[in-house]
Amino acid sequence: MTYQTLNVDLAERSYPIFIGPDLLNKSELFTPYISGKKVLIVTNQTVAPLYLERLKSSLSSFELDEIILPDGEQYKTLDTVNLIFTHLLEKKHSRKTTLIALGGGVIGDMTGFAAASFQRGVDFIQIPTTVLSQVDSSVGGKTGVNHKLGKNMIGAFKQPKAVFADTNTLKTLPNRELSAGIAEVVKYGLITDYLFFEWLEKNILELYSLDERAVQYAIKQSCLVKADIVNQDEMESGVRALLNLGHTFGHAIETSLGYGKYLHGEAVAIGTVMASYLSVLEGNISFEDHLRIINLFEKVNLPVDSPVEMQVDDFVEKMSIDKKVVDGKLRLILFSKMSQAIISDTFDHEKLMKTLATKNFRNLD
Amino acid sequence: MTYQTLNVDLAERSYPIFIGPDLLNKSELFTPYISGKKVLIVTNQTVAPLYLERLKSSLSSFELDEIILPDGEQYKTLDTVNLIFTHLLEKKHSRKTTLIALGGGVIGDMTGFAAASFQRGVDFIQIPTTVLSQVDSSVGGKTGVNHKLGKNMIGAFKQPKAVFADTNTLKTLPNRELSAGIAEVVKYGLITDYLFFEWLEKNILELYSLDERAVQYAIKQSCLVKADIVNQDEMESGVRALLNLGHTFGHAIETSLGYGKYLHGEAVAIGTVMASYLSVLEGNISFEDHLRIINLFEKVNLPVDSPVEMQVDDFVEKMSIDKKVVDGKLRLILFSKMSQAIISDTFDHEKLMKTLATKNFRNLD
Repeated sequence: MTYQTLNVDLAERSYPIFIGPDLLNKSELFTPYISGKKVLIVTNQTVAPLYLERLKSSLSSFELDEIILPDGEQYKTLDTVNLIFTHLLEKKHSRKTTLIALGGGVIGDMTGFAAASFQRGVDFIQIPTTVLSQVDSSVGGKTGVNHKLGKNMIGAFKQPKAVFADTNTLKTLPNRELSAGIAEVVKYGLITDYLFFEWLEKNILELYSLDERAVQYAIKQSCLVKADIVNQDEMESGVRALLNLGHTFGHAIETSLGYGKYLHGEAVAIGTVMASYLSVLEGNISFEDHLRIINLFEKVNLPVDSPVEMQVDDFVEKMSIDKKVVDGKLRLILFSKMSQAIISDTFDHEKLMKTLATKNFRNLD
Repeated sequence: MTYQTLNVDLAERSYPIFIGPDLLNKSELFTPYISGKKVLIVTNQTVAPLYLERLKSSLSSFELDEIILPDGEQYKTLDTVNLIFTHLLEKKHSRKTTLIALGGGVIGDMTGFAAASFQRGVDFIQIPTTVLSQVDSSVGGKTGVNHKLGKNMIGAFKQPKAVFADTNTLKTLPNRELSAGIAEVVKYGLITDYLFFEWLEKNILELYSLDERAVQYAIKQSCLVKADIVNQDEMESGVRALLNLGHTFGHAIETSLGYGKYLHGEAVAIGTVMASYLSVLEGNISFEDHLRIINLFEKVNLPVDSPVEMQVDDFVEKMSIDKKVVDGKLRLILFSKMSQAIISDTFDHEKLMKTLATKNFRNLD
């Protein structure tokens, strides 16, 4: 099957997303996006044995350099990014170098931030190798690292020169990560695109089994929804916040329990169910639609219950330093109707407290 | 004496530079540039006792927070910037906060980088309190920190909302820092503005004694030259490199001897003399004009000899990882004629080696 191309239109920082099987082997696709001679491939210990040599063969006309980082969200720190800086300086990379992120969202976020900050900005290319990063990190230019006091608190907006979403790389994903990625795909169906949500209800098992047609469609459709929102709001001052559906609750879960206990997508699935539940309490969506969301997540084995370890106070504490707090007022992404997310700071406080206290969202009381 | 305003024109990121005495006390000047309620003042242990309380009085209508960092170029690191992040998170600053840099170039560079990176970008205001930072950091948006393997290797382009160059703050500067700042002022006379160089030859002692008229003129004229160059080249792909006159040699001196042995401006003065010397060897400027540059620096007690501790190899090693290296080829800022700097990669290698080996640049052999 051939590949597709989606163009993210951001004036002088526009770039293409290539989606299809076996892109890693198509060296002719890469060369137009590398302007200097030197390239640093940034990858991790899990991805390197699988795909690094293949990528290096495709880029053999360049002066190749590589850094292999430890794998995991717990390494998404300023210290790890500093390892990239040290490597770049030791190997005498100039500001004409190109960084290539080969891996999932953590590698993409750190490599993008390193590219934004090394000598105040060098080029970078993304090769996302997970569903999550193919649909979510490909569009939007958000890069950065975690701080011990909060997730993604340090970073930059940095657009890549090009994104290569090689669908073959998804075949080596552990099932749990595949599911976590699909959680973000479902999110795109829920933010603005009811037809996509319906498509997902019919096709989620094809997607889960990595049927090429379903995968390409889901990635492209998710990128389209995201690109549409990002085009309206590149610097995240308004509508872009809709992309954080499920993330405020989700980040609270991740930071309370420590990164790693839940995968990001798993926390987002639970967070989305919590947003949906609060939207039911607010009278904006029906309990039946809320159950459709839970059912869709459960079909791909995603968690839909609030962690038993977490108390209401844990949520309250973690949510108050989240980026969604603007001038002291908590804003949440809720639904105004099914598959239509809105930014709200007018929800009822008691209903929020009830949501935070609930563990099983299949019950209304 | 009243203040002047210079507008740096960068489309939607344009901002004013206010230049004049006693600006710290003019609270009405600040308020239009602070959009949220919270403010974090970033300053250091030297500047805080002198000016922090005065600034806080002027900003008393805001929710004020402060962080006082150790003073010195050796603290211009990712670790120190991380202290700012930690403070911002501990005190629950949101992305509506405004950072205010109160201090010299080191404080400005770190605060700007923190503002660029905290939650991917918050507002910041500069209150430069040294000649160097008033003329050099006020324009251009370069922010960042040093890495143990190179100066200013990590950073971002970030424009402030406004700059307040309070000329009164220069009165507490140690003489050595005042001289170092004047080195950068002379640089602006040398890059493109011969009339300004002539003005400096006549007025340098008034400037050195902080005559208000001379100070305002020198700061404004330096900012104008810089703004003119930055407007042509915001992201430093071409002509902006001229601003690095004296800096490639200077950085080699600073990194070889360790930050702190020479002040930045002192290293730039020596570096400028080296660039001038090589330009004489290349036949581009007369030996007499070269001596005028040396004489001007000496009038304000700036060093003009190459450090005796440094060997040719020290220069070679440090200069090869400098940012001025593009695709492996060393580029230097030299003179094409008096007060006209150019980017050159065609200078004679032997003449460069002779320059690196020379200690006293008053002699041609």
